[in-house]
Amino acid sequence: MTDPLPPAVAEALASVLPWASPGHFLTGLEPGLDGTLSLLDLAVALRTHQDEVARARPLAGRVFAGMFFDPSLRTRASMAVACAKLGASFVELQPGTGMWTLEFKDEVVMDGMAAEHVREAAGVLGRYADVVGLRAFPTRGQWKRERTQPVHTAFADHAGAPIVNLEGPFAHPCQGLADALTLRDLFPEPNGRKFVLSWAPHPKQLPMAVPHSALWAAASLGMDVTLAHPEDFELDSDALATADSLARETGGTFSVTHNRDAAFDGADVVYAKAWGAVSGPASTSRGHADAVAHLADWSITQKDLHRGAPARFMHCLPVRRGVVVGDDVLDGPLSSVLDQADNRIWAQAALLLAMMGK
Amino acid sequence: MTDPLPPAVAEALASVLPWASPGHFLTGLEPGLDGTLSLLDLAVALRTHQDEVARARPLAGRVFAGMFFDPSLRTRASMAVACAKLGASFVELQPGTGMWTLEFKDEVVMDGMAAEHVREAAGVLGRYADVVGLRAFPTRGQWKRERTQPVHTAFADHAGAPIVNLEGPFAHPCQGLADALTLRDLFPEPNGRKFVLSWAPHPKQLPMAVPHSALWAAASLGMDVTLAHPEDFELDSDALATADSLARETGGTFSVTHNRDAAFDGADVVYAKAWGAVSGPASTSRGHADAVAHLADWSITQKDLHRGAPARFMHCLPVRRGVVVGDDVLDGPLSSVLDQADNRIWAQAALLLAMMGK
Amino acid sequence: MTDPLPPAVAEALASVLPWASPGHFLTGLEPGLDGTLSLLDLAVALRTHQDEVARARPLAGRVFAGMFFDPSLRTRASMAVACAKLGASFVELQPGTGMWTLEFKDEVVMDGMAAEHVREAAGVLGRYADVVGLRAFPTRGQWKRERTQPVHTAFADHAGAPIVNLEGPFAHPCQGLADALTLRDLFPEPNGRKFVLSWAPHPKQLPMAVPHSALWAAASLGMDVTLAHPEDFELDSDALATADSLARETGGTFSVTHNRDAAFDGADVVYAKAWGAVSGPASTSRGHADAVAHLADWSITQKDLHRGAPARFMHCLPVRRGVVVGDDVLDGPLSSVLDQADNRIWAQAALLLAMMGK
Repeated sequence: MTDPLPPAVAEALASVLPWASPGHFLTGLEPGLDGTLSLLDLAVALRTHQDEVARARPLAGRVFAGMFFDPSLRTRASMAVACAKLGASFVELQPGTGMWTLEFKDEVVMDGMAAEHVREAAGVLGRYADVVGLRAFPTRGQWKRERTQPVHTAFADHAGAPIVNLEGPFAHPCQGLADALTLRDLFPEPNGRKFVLSWAPHPKQLPMAVPHSALWAAASLGMDVTLAHPEDFELDSDALATADSLARETGGTFSVTHNRDAAFDGADVVYAKAWGAVSGPASTSRGHADAVAHLADWSITQKDLHRGAPARFMHCLPVRRGVVVGDDVLDGPLSSVLDQADNRIWAQAALLLAMMGK
Repeated sequence: MTDPLPPAVAEALASVLPWASPGHFLTGLEPGLDGTLSLLDLAVALRTHQDEVARARPLAGRVFAGMFFDPSLRTRASMAVACAKLGASFVELQPGTGMWTLEFKDEVVMDGMAAEHVREAAGVLGRYADVVGLRAFPTRGQWKRERTQPVHTAFADHAGAPIVNLEGPFAHPCQGLADALTLRDLFPEPNGRKFVLSWAPHPKQLPMAVPHSALWAAASLGMDVTLAHPEDFELDSDALATADSLARETGGTFSVTHNRDAAFDGADVVYAKAWGAVSGPASTSRGHADAVAHLADWSITQKDLHRGAPARFMHCLPVRRGVVVGDDVLDGPLSSVLDQADNRIWAQAALLLAMMGK
Repeated sequence: MTDPLPPAVAEALASVLPWASPGHFLTGLEPGLDGTLSLLDLAVALRTHQDEVARARPLAGRVFAGMFFDPSLRTRASMAVACAKLGASFVELQPGTGMWTLEFKDEVVMDGMAAEHVREAAGVLGRYADVVGLRAFPTRGQWKRERTQPVHTAFADHAGAPIVNLEGPFAHPCQGLADALTLRDLFPEPNGRKFVLSWAPHPKQLPMAVPHSALWAAASLGMDVTLAHPEDFELDSDALATADSLARETGGTFSVTHNRDAAFDGADVVYAKAWGAVSGPASTSRGHADAVAHLADWSITQKDLHRGAPARFMHCLPVRRGVVVGDDVLDGPLSSVLDQADNRIWAQAALLLAMMGK
């Protein structure tokens, strides 16, 4: 016998709009604007009533399998915790460590290293798990191909179960959902608030998944969204078009600038994130290092935050101190980075409950 | 307070014959024919009533510890899922990754690499877990020794708790139990149905555990079992004698042939599996490569399946497409490979409940 | 709905004295003498009523996150099992395998290998877990620094959640609590019983955490504690002073000798443990090897045990047979090593319930 769900959670769950079968969550845009907002309501209800939910174990016997092709602290731990809070089981798989390498190409004679094809690996996982999570970073191949998130797509094609993207080349929708939750916690009325996503220096050519998802999160809440980055560090043009379209739909705005000072003027939130260029001179390893060496002043400082309200500081973590942002910002009262990390639990719990709890 | 077990599950559980103390499951033959059949009944009951069983959590507080000396996708994930469905806890251990290497020899001065003896490692695990699972492949040493499954035997000797073989050199009994379940799903009256186990080409010299267990599974159901393989790829003679003896006991038949076309004539099931020779010219790495190069026509095709009913296709996975079997077979309607993988959950859940649930 | 705790467990839990906020368990001395004794009572109650406790799931929805910078069999498995018995979730993290490397220095420009600072890593873990466990061995740097357990301290400073030491350079308090439990199981009236902690040979320069915690455990129970080791293998002087002070407080005694035969005379317990010197000639790798080569007679034998009651043999495991101690001791009736390992479950379960169950 299990306890019933707290009424506030049950109501929020009932109001989550079901998105189209098979219900993948690959870009995070699948639930649509209303779906996203109702997931945020469910996240708040779960967070508020977490002890009663833990006793109710609404996902007892349900299995979430997370396949990690790339390393993870927050995503892995927060998914394990989200499962724990709901009574679901979390099964983790790391290909290559204690598991076979996978073949993704079709109609290939598998006489090389790969012992298993994604068709079988995904097919089996889809039988074992109610929802399959997948983390696979871009491999710095052709962006035209990477942006389609080919590993995720292959699993979605063959798993026969819903796939949750635990970070892909194009989007990090669990982070985006948690960021939307954090923004709504900071600003119960986010409409008209100024959200600045600023590029930041970093020794590595990091993926663009987080900045894409962060832009969409802010735009989905009707904020005035400004993207600031140096020349040659353009994000994906379709991702920008999506941000623009979301902003129009919600009564927000979206603009891009190379002038960081102007961007920070009047900002309510500064979201810092490093990424590497996918084309042009800065897209090579050497070109990135050269560019970053000249762009150290894009590192976020206290002064940047005080051109606005002052602005709250956000970052998805992990963050390199002294490179992306100063210690004083991270350790000061304007930083929301731990709240963002914390909200991963509740955003993902809402997602899992919406996917498995009906 | 926990829900009671569904009556169908409770009845099936009551009818599982207890096998001799300490109840290891190393070859899979330990429960005897009646025990195996009652485990299959229990597996079906658990699968049918899985939601009620998940709520009842019959193994709450019980611990299954799986020690993996070799990599695993299906076995590890399906055991984790089986535990989840029953409310048991799954503790995974990988010697050598985050753990000490083990000494197996007795009366040795341990001044080398090994920091712990199997006597203590097994003894401790047997205190921590209600059932200990163990995966250890053959090391291509002397077959005479390998066939005794020495790692499994050492743990069984020292754990003081029942051991479940999660694949050893001689048998893969969890796969065998799942295969028996799949065969009974396909043929509610398996008696007299023709089951063909066919060798297949593969670049690696794979173990014989799965073919042994598959033969025993089919023979235990009273099927007409044909083993087809090229010369020089004999399975273990005791394993064959066991298959023959089981077939006699159940009213089935058992035969071995080198003529694959004759074997496939009238087949109801074709189970493909690659393995390496343990003696003779094909037993070396070079000899295996030479032999396989001449045996590409042992790869399973649609045509092979249509010499019979047509025949259903089975394989334990992982499978190399274009080498062991054609894409069209795996992607076609005759393939049961995902059902086999799925049945791992319920076969193992039955086993765990029988071992820990009384 | 969950069952209530068995009355004996609830009473023992109520009597566990809360130690000072934030309730870290880094040396194991934090709960104080009365707190330690009441934890032992709680451990016994949990062990006695384990089936009812498993049904009650007193820590359902609670999360224990264990971060393992160093390998582990017993600690990891026993913590997973302790969580399972209480219904808590165990989330494991291994930095460097599937996770980022961490920066521990403050005010550093993070343009090197480390992708995350302990301030964020600990801060996030402290949000995700109700209690954070941490295993980090000494790195054979300056003992003056190592003895402060700098990794543990950094996490304690930044996690905002209680930290449990799963073995650090200075103490292994979970082992110590289990050892105290084992001593009380062996001697319900431990006062006045002779406890000998004897150094033993080992090819590696092992840490001093276990011997420190073992001394404190025996002294906390009022035993007559003798530490026997060869010259040049002194333990930490503050650790010895703590043992002496605990013994005075409990009516026991504490002494140190280089004469192993005298130490074993009349012993009720012989606890063997190898460790390396942190200063002096034996503290180098070469010096250790030279010293150990001349100290083979410090290996524990049956004869040593029979200079006393006869004495029970204890060791924390893993143990090198034929080096630290003879096979006949480990396999004989005087060995308590498996009971010590088993008691890890119940000592840690008491700790977790005391930290999370109120």
